[in-house]
Amino acid sequence: MDKGIADAFTAITLDSCLSFREGDRLRIQAEPPHRDLVHEIAAGAWDRGARDVRVEWGDSRLSRIYFDRAKDDRFDSAPSWVANDGAMYVDEGWCVLRLEGEENPIALDGVEPGRLQRHQRARAIALSKYRSAIISNKIPWTILPVATEAWARAVFGTAGRPIGEDPVAELWNVLMPILRLDGPDPAAALRAHAEELAARARRLTEAHLTEVHFSGPGTDLRIGLSSRSRWGGAGAKAPDGRFFLPNHPTEEVFTSPDNRLAEGKVSCTRPVKVLGESVVGAWFEFREGRAIASGAKKGAEVLARYLEVDPGASRLGEVALVDSFGPIWKSGLVFDSILLDENAACHIALGSAYVDVFEGSDTMNTEERAAAGYNEALVHTDFMIGSPEVDVEGRRQDGTTLKILQGGKFVA
Amino acid sequence: MDKGIADAFTAITLDSCLSFREGDRLRIQAEPPHRDLVHEIAAGAWDRGARDVRVEWGDSRLSRIYFDRAKDDRFDSAPSWVANDGAMYVDEGWCVLRLEGEENPIALDGVEPGRLQRHQRARAIALSKYRSAIISNKIPWTILPVATEAWARAVFGTAGRPIGEDPVAELWNVLMPILRLDGPDPAAALRAHAEELAARARRLTEAHLTEVHFSGPGTDLRIGLSSRSRWGGAGAKAPDGRFFLPNHPTEEVFTSPDNRLAEGKVSCTRPVKVLGESVVGAWFEFREGRAIASGAKKGAEVLARYLEVDPGASRLGEVALVDSFGPIWKSGLVFDSILLDENAACHIALGSAYVDVFEGSDTMNTEERAAAGYNEALVHTDFMIGSPEVDVEGRRQDGTTLKILQGGKFVA
Repeated sequence: MDKGIADAFTAITLDSCLSFREGDRLRIQAEPPHRDLVHEIAAGAWDRGARDVRVEWGDSRLSRIYFDRAKDDRFDSAPSWVANDGAMYVDEGWCVLRLEGEENPIALDGVEPGRLQRHQRARAIALSKYRSAIISNKIPWTILPVATEAWARAVFGTAGRPIGEDPVAELWNVLMPILRLDGPDPAAALRAHAEELAARARRLTEAHLTEVHFSGPGTDLRIGLSSRSRWGGAGAKAPDGRFFLPNHPTEEVFTSPDNRLAEGKVSCTRPVKVLGESVVGAWFEFREGRAIASGAKKGAEVLARYLEVDPGASRLGEVALVDSFGPIWKSGLVFDSILLDENAACHIALGSAYVDVFEGSDTMNTEERAAAGYNEALVHTDFMIGSPEVDVEGRRQDGTTLKILQGGKFVA
Repeated sequence: MDKGIADAFTAITLDSCLSFREGDRLRIQAEPPHRDLVHEIAAGAWDRGARDVRVEWGDSRLSRIYFDRAKDDRFDSAPSWVANDGAMYVDEGWCVLRLEGEENPIALDGVEPGRLQRHQRARAIALSKYRSAIISNKIPWTILPVATEAWARAVFGTAGRPIGEDPVAELWNVLMPILRLDGPDPAAALRAHAEELAARARRLTEAHLTEVHFSGPGTDLRIGLSSRSRWGGAGAKAPDGRFFLPNHPTEEVFTSPDNRLAEGKVSCTRPVKVLGESVVGAWFEFREGRAIASGAKKGAEVLARYLEVDPGASRLGEVALVDSFGPIWKSGLVFDSILLDENAACHIALGSAYVDVFEGSDTMNTEERAAAGYNEALVHTDFMIGSPEVDVEGRRQDGTTLKILQGGKFVA
């Protein structure tokens, strides 16, 4: 890959996204096509005085073989190293980097949905300590996209764009502005962007909203917020005080709602991967916070399976507001990658809530969380519901309304 | 890769080398070019009812980056997951498969030898429980060669052979008879071969030798055996009674000598990797069991470092007898891979001994082992010393001699 891109990507990842320091440990989750970039990042980490660098290579073809050919009882438990590794990363305070950009975006399409669901559930249980540390920002973590050939072909193909000789380079050209790597000082650009999102989150928190209301084609959804709901955006703080960016790119401000308060219908505006499978044209109907009905043009079955993973999988853990005129939406592309697509449009997440945007939840036990409307679940999946045709309004404690997004654009 | 080769390789690996059964767990250590074959083997393991299959991908370019750029104090300890994983594989009784065939055979050439030595020492300490289980056959393990492009080019290049369009396929053609995969019933051929080696080992054990004497160009070495030394060959038994083949191919019968009794000079007949680096034309001089001097045409420095890893690294843990007219020697090639080269010629190992060929050592503590002349060390490296020009004679307890190899050929 292009050396300039690799260098800029490495610097942003380590210095801006993870605030990586001498003595830190780095876990890298990557797929085979990321290998050149992984080598650059590993070198960068060692150059910065890393204590350890460990790369875990995902392999979607190997996963497919497992899902198709393992004995059926294999999907109900996870190997012991999954839990062991997860606990180690937390106890030793590793920095975690996940590179996204699949070698084969459709590798798991057509797998028996029950196996995907049971597998994900078993992994989530094995990784509960790890997931809880991630959700509550106890260790620095970040996710970034990496261009791959199959992904580039899928993205450009879906858009009906002619595909040139070097689709990977073309996709990098699309990703550069999205990652804010195209200017003279990417770190400064990222800092300014993060400050803008933080200010937006502050304003929303100070408005003390009791509800956000999405309306648009096929969508009329009211989501009730808790008095504990706080808006966050663009970055988090680890226990050691360091700033880190859990996703890059990030265009959202988000909060965790009261999981008992969602009413109405909502249509998804972009495809999404659910338990490894593509789901297109999904919709949900909510009553008293729970998705009581769902459907999709493609993937309805896996969607229904998802809602049954556990009780929290059918309730909301997150609502996020995104300007539809950000660089991702402006690219005009659907990436079929949650990291990018969730930052193209407003979205809701069915599944676990975030501790740091639900005041007091870090010290609550399970019963207290349930009583407060904090959603606990083994899973967390974002569903995009925003577009230039969707408006979002907030309701304040005194019953007055606040226009937040109009025609997809932030106005609050 | 060729589907017929992959199928035969998978069947031999799982059924003949590991006796893989329903409910077993499989650890696969592989490099990126082995990926297609790894997928076949994983599928075969799941088809046989595997409980778990875990692939650990080595990456020599990543290792090189680490050796060149990590802070100097990083080489004196191993990350905690190394010991954790090692203990898990033993406690849970995993089957272990290592595929050999490097992506880049010279990836580590030129690395600072002190770093290689300290790294290997730290890993060996972290893996002591695992290494001890391997050495005493507590878990089934096997190592097999896989053709890769760089390896094929190196092998054919060294031999001065013209390299055709598909060097990987050509190397597979060389490996097929070596792995006994070229006949109509590879499993039966392998069984017959193993029985022949086992009979040879039995005859040598029953001869109750006190010494083996190697003589040839640059070599006049007498290695004293213990009354506890037993000869083994072609297969081992796991605690659950299953037969497994620790290496495939294997052409050797071997024992662990008395580590206080080796006298004379010995010249190596093939190159060998020491701490990751190629060593060519090595020689040693032994006094009272210890290598008191060493040298090499290439790699003398890393060789000297090796002998200093710990006290056991300069003493013998193994002596192995190999017919020079086996399929590996007959190929006329030097593979620069210990798995093949050690089975082309008689060899000695500097470093740890094998429990199962040194009677009673499984229940001895460290002091008892030292008193019995059983060699303990953090490392174990084979050095080939046989050729058609090297004769091997045994000495019996009554002082009579037994001709074992003449002109490289087994006669005992």
